[in-house]
Amino acid sequence: MAFGGKVLALAGGVGGARMAAGLARALPAGALTVAVNVGDDFDHLGLHVAPDLDTVTYTLAGINNPAQGWGIAGETTAFMGALKRLGGPDWFLLGDQDMATHVLRTLRLKAGESLSAITADFARRLGITTRIVPMSDDPVRSIVDTDEGTLPFQDYFVRRQCIPRFHGIRFDGLETARPSAGLVAALRDPDLSAIIICPSNPILSIWPILGVSGVHAALSTASAPVIAVSPFIGAKAVKGPAGKIFAELNLDPSPAGLLSCYDGLVDGLVMDHADADRAGNCGDVALRVTDILMRDGADQEHLALEILDFAAGLRAGTGGRDG
Amino acid sequence: MAFGGKVLALAGGVGGARMAAGLARALPAGALTVAVNVGDDFDHLGLHVAPDLDTVTYTLAGINNPAQGWGIAGETTAFMGALKRLGGPDWFLLGDQDMATHVLRTLRLKAGESLSAITADFARRLGITTRIVPMSDDPVRSIVDTDEGTLPFQDYFVRRQCIPRFHGIRFDGLETARPSAGLVAALRDPDLSAIIICPSNPILSIWPILGVSGVHAALSTASAPVIAVSPFIGAKAVKGPAGKIFAELNLDPSPAGLLSCYDGLVDGLVMDHADADRAGNCGDVALRVTDILMRDGADQEHLALEILDFAAGLRAGTGGRDG
Repeated sequence: MAFGGKVLALAGGVGGARMAAGLARALPAGALTVAVNVGDDFDHLGLHVAPDLDTVTYTLAGINNPAQGWGIAGETTAFMGALKRLGGPDWFLLGDQDMATHVLRTLRLKAGESLSAITADFARRLGITTRIVPMSDDPVRSIVDTDEGTLPFQDYFVRRQCIPRFHGIRFDGLETARPSAGLVAALRDPDLSAIIICPSNPILSIWPILGVSGVHAALSTASAPVIAVSPFIGAKAVKGPAGKIFAELNLDPSPAGLLSCYDGLVDGLVMDHADADRAGNCGDVALRVTDILMRDGADQEHLALEILDFAAGLRAGTGGRDG
Repeated sequence: MAFGGKVLALAGGVGGARMAAGLARALPAGALTVAVNVGDDFDHLGLHVAPDLDTVTYTLAGINNPAQGWGIAGETTAFMGALKRLGGPDWFLLGDQDMATHVLRTLRLKAGESLSAITADFARRLGITTRIVPMSDDPVRSIVDTDEGTLPFQDYFVRRQCIPRFHGIRFDGLETARPSAGLVAALRDPDLSAIIICPSNPILSIWPILGVSGVHAALSTASAPVIAVSPFIGAKAVKGPAGKIFAELNLDPSPAGLLSCYDGLVDGLVMDHADADRAGNCGDVALRVTDILMRDGADQEHLALEILDFAAGLRAGTGGRDG
């Protein structure tokens, strides 16, 4: 039975993009909105770079580099080679095709268009029917507090490759950032039937989205179930520094540890078989144990269908622990 | 005998760059300054693009596309393809390597560096020992008056491919543009022994340089001979729209017609054998007839040596008509 109603997914980069791609395949056209973190956006070489938005967009367009997760398939690096030759900063890789996204987005932002409008237009031109919306059109900048001092997000994440010890994170601009119109519309949609927190890094990618004005309140009062998908398999992050950061914050990479990041907002948690024996202390959160690794499009769609089935059960009051 | 003293070359794009490359080979290190037109610079995609400066720089670095004249050898166009896919303007080709020049220059200009300083740094990093200086660090923008109305230079030159009928040209900003420090230094150098007007388009490329404050006066009073190299062979432009523009202005593509563009500043004219029978009405301007086509580096150097010999003769008072 096809899932009825609308779905809102909250996503960061690679894990969020893969989950969004599965949901886009599993749902009817027009049913899915993906709200994307922009806390790791930054100004680089005078360009507005939005890594999570681009990863989601390229993935939903089917032009992403599937092995790497981010970037465009078949991407070339002539720009970077020439930039290095001229003494420019080469620590953040910008592919030749990818550059077009940054240059055109920067130009259109300076001309007064919103990030939402530009993102929607790029998606349309790339043949994407899913709504991709930035969490906010206002600037938010993640700043990581480390044992090497405070670092702008990409300095921590790319330049220093998450090596500094993570002490905490703040999101400059988040207090006054308004949710994008597309995110507001999705949250207010009377047909909203599931809110899915993708298996992105809860601290780096999901916290900024939940911190946008009104989002936390909307999730806590939503009639649609809020379902989180774990980014851990066997207590290890599938990708990225979530495991290292959890350890540095003395958080347990278990279902309960993950749920502690989500502040009581989650109604259902989707986790891997490999973590079933760590699923204690989850309170009244419904659990769904399945295979959550997304190796390819088939995995993505299969997991999405499983999540939608779980959500339908929770809406009908037939969900609950199976772990 | 090696040419003694310093040489200043005034250059536009491809023809100027080829002449400059020959002079650079023919002269001792440190003897040559190339002052380059920036009237065809423009802001494109939010980037400061400087076509003539880049053509001269790439050519002197030996990384230019020799067949095309402009651009970098082996250049790729992934950026342009992606830009087009996203609906960006694709009428002005920016190669993937070339993009690094524009992005980094724009970034450094915004940070407050002068175009002169950036140009010098790029040249140094590319291994160029010749001084390349923009005619001015102040913005000058060539505007072409045509039968389709006034067009910013690159709209006329690239977007409309010089098809509109040329009525005239103005140079916005030129009245207040100060010569760059490097151009002033070259003009004031007591060792200055030749000023060479390269075979660039006299109207599009040389007029803006001559119009920079003090340049015309400096050339008219210079003790060094001013030598123009014709851009015509057999009354046809070697490259570009000079022939078409001369016709539309009712100017004769002859030595005399060319000299009429240079307002009495020229002491000696270097022209091709193919134009020897059109060499009337050149007044007291000394003429040197030779093979001026520059097919390769050997041609460039040979022509440069011929010009330097001509200049040495004019300085010694032994020059004069040989046509």
